[in-house]
Amino acid sequence: ANEASAQPVSPQAAAPPGGYHTLVVSNEGGVFTIRINRPDKKNALTMQTYEELIKALDQASNDKTVVLAAVTGTGDYYSSGNDLSNFANIQPDQIAKMADDARDILIRFVGAFIDFPKPLISLVNGPAVGVMVTTLGLYDAVYATDKATFHTPFSQLGQTPEGCSSYTFPKLMGTGKAAEMLLFNQKISAHEACQRDLVTEVFPDSSFHKEVTARLQRHAKYPVKSMVYAKKLYRDQEREILHKINAQECDRLVERWQSEDCINAIMSFFSKKSKM
Amino acid sequence: ANEASAQPVSPQAAAPPGGYHTLVVSNEGGVFTIRINRPDKKNALTMQTYEELIKALDQASNDKTVVLAAVTGTGDYYSSGNDLSNFANIQPDQIAKMADDARDILIRFVGAFIDFPKPLISLVNGPAVGVMVTTLGLYDAVYATDKATFHTPFSQLGQTPEGCSSYTFPKLMGTGKAAEMLLFNQKISAHEACQRDLVTEVFPDSSFHKEVTARLQRHAKYPVKSMVYAKKLYRDQEREILHKINAQECDRLVERWQSEDCINAIMSFFSKKSKM
Amino acid sequence: ANEASAQPVSPQAAAPPGGYHTLVVSNEGGVFTIRINRPDKKNALTMQTYEELIKALDQASNDKTVVLAAVTGTGDYYSSGNDLSNFANIQPDQIAKMADDARDILIRFVGAFIDFPKPLISLVNGPAVGVMVTTLGLYDAVYATDKATFHTPFSQLGQTPEGCSSYTFPKLMGTGKAAEMLLFNQKISAHEACQRDLVTEVFPDSSFHKEVTARLQRHAKYPVKSMVYAKKLYRDQEREILHKINAQECDRLVERWQSEDCINAIMSFFSKKSKM
Repeated sequence: ANEASAQPVSPQAAAPPGGYHTLVVSNEGGVFTIRINRPDKKNALTMQTYEELIKALDQASNDKTVVLAAVTGTGDYYSSGNDLSNFANIQPDQIAKMADDARDILIRFVGAFIDFPKPLISLVNGPAVGVMVTTLGLYDAVYATDKATFHTPFSQLGQTPEGCSSYTFPKLMGTGKAAEMLLFNQKISAHEACQRDLVTEVFPDSSFHKEVTARLQRHAKYPVKSMVYAKKLYRDQEREILHKINAQECDRLVERWQSEDCINAIMSFFSKKSKM
Repeated sequence: ANEASAQPVSPQAAAPPGGYHTLVVSNEGGVFTIRINRPDKKNALTMQTYEELIKALDQASNDKTVVLAAVTGTGDYYSSGNDLSNFANIQPDQIAKMADDARDILIRFVGAFIDFPKPLISLVNGPAVGVMVTTLGLYDAVYATDKATFHTPFSQLGQTPEGCSSYTFPKLMGTGKAAEMLLFNQKISAHEACQRDLVTEVFPDSSFHKEVTARLQRHAKYPVKSMVYAKKLYRDQEREILHKINAQECDRLVERWQSEDCINAIMSFFSKKSKM
Repeated sequence: ANEASAQPVSPQAAAPPGGYHTLVVSNEGGVFTIRINRPDKKNALTMQTYEELIKALDQASNDKTVVLAAVTGTGDYYSSGNDLSNFANIQPDQIAKMADDARDILIRFVGAFIDFPKPLISLVNGPAVGVMVTTLGLYDAVYATDKATFHTPFSQLGQTPEGCSSYTFPKLMGTGKAAEMLLFNQKISAHEACQRDLVTEVFPDSSFHKEVTARLQRHAKYPVKSMVYAKKLYRDQEREILHKINAQECDRLVERWQSEDCINAIMSFFSKKSKM
């Protein structure tokens, strides 16, 4: 683990700062840090976590003292992605409603990344899975510890890609290497992810927290308008297509989540888990 | 040579399996393998080979027992590309018709790759030339032996790129490295092709056949619908532009094939060959 | 320094060849070389240099003996980019006009690269800064000495990207690595630029001039029509979007050049310079 993981904050705190229960949020010197804080669950995303991440990005966007935002995780994991318990204990007649609700929250979640106007930086402090990998193509920098791994086991779970990865991954690494991850469930290392331009720079785990903190503080001293307008130049070119892809991916997932492929894979997951 | 090349099948066989004369086609465990089987001609593509490849892709597409398809070659070569004998013995007054016919077959051939709905994997077992290189950007994975090379000597032959490479190559490797291949006739190694994201992964030649066979069998066990829908997500984004580029490239070739540049280059090719 | 830098030509020459004062232009064996010739100013671009580069590209485009064009610099530098003296000694009531004039020249300058019909090759003989880096995505090959560096310190100067880099850089190297250069002022080496596909190939400085000269002479012997038509295939796909981005980038710069961010940065630059 790196230094970023030193101080988990209890999600049970009576009055959490900023009203966040699953995140720890701070603003230092223009750097707005959003830390997913469910280390005992490998920072998996519950419905509440999705909502709080949307809220935190909105807060960072509107706070004039914020120059840039960073997303990271508490503990050894960056995030294990969607908390599969979101799918547990669903009655058969509730599956369609669950799928629609999940679609609604996912489309807003990814949309918040597409439209975030300031520089957005991911600090990948450990293994990253699923939607926390697929959305990396929407950040303006991805700094990773050399202990990070990147895994999107969609077809293994009977599902399909989200986070605009069906657009960003082929653009970043070519269709072949993208399909290896998105279709064939390949897990890659931080150095491989950097060669594929999914990660911007890899740091030794021992100095990760210190180096990226210094880096963010330096970035936050540049004129914010120049950075916001530069980002706007490249994001505006793709904003429309990104929202379109986001909707297509979410629509497909509504079908997938109700498919036998997915239901069997989820049941198998919990069955194995209960035997451990 | 690797193990894949061990058993060439005679194209003179009276009743070839599946009715293919220039290919060997098989279906094992959901993996549909299409092997170009003209080892004495370095697996160059005659008009018949183009037609049979279109037919084989169609068969793989419609056969419900097929999960994914792979394309490879018999012997030391993957494919030397278009068989220049397609251009030989053409009377001057037949050149225009030959060019129109070739355009028709090429546009359907490349179109079959664009629209193939299941995962499509290239197993590059040796040197690859021309159209069998340019179409690699349309596969979902390209596994290559470390003895493979990649060469698209278009301007040298007075021709221009096809296979949607004027779109996929700049997207994969940037305009500069794409132009080095497509305009300036650069031949690259498997490792270089992998750095450029044209190849997904490179394997030692000695274990190539064994490793990729295992890989394909593993891929074929994932839920086919998740893979087909994931591919559809990224292919649909580009399907229209790919077909448009394909048509533009083929139209340009109709002009090029009838140009002095091309006719002189082809004559020079056969003149050198007859002196050998 | 490499051999290319051996013979600076005095810009004060009474009747410069071809009427160029800030460039040295030559045509040898179909290779049209445009050499920025202000070595005492690190080949910074004055308004005159921009106009002469537009003129030289136009000349290379229309001269039927020219097969391809190359751009390089005299001396140790490739180019330090926009000459900030373009912004000096401007009276407050002239800033708006200066910004409009600069927009006009920049949009035509970048447009000349977008529309250049023949193969266009950059020979990066040393450090490259600003607009001479951002336009590299519009070349068909970028050959660099291993002593070259690449730097686009836009936000540091209160400015924003030009040269279509807000489009070409994310496409070449992904949003993260592009933002590291375009938003966060990162300077990279020739080898890093090659890994990011911004540079096509890196040569040892000691043999740079000799190797690239031989390379260009070889390229110039291929059929020019095949190269022009191949380039047209990929450039036509993006011509419209490139011109649109160029206009958007220039419009944003008109605002930026008149902003406090930029004025303060320029004043700080000259203040530091006068103290040296």
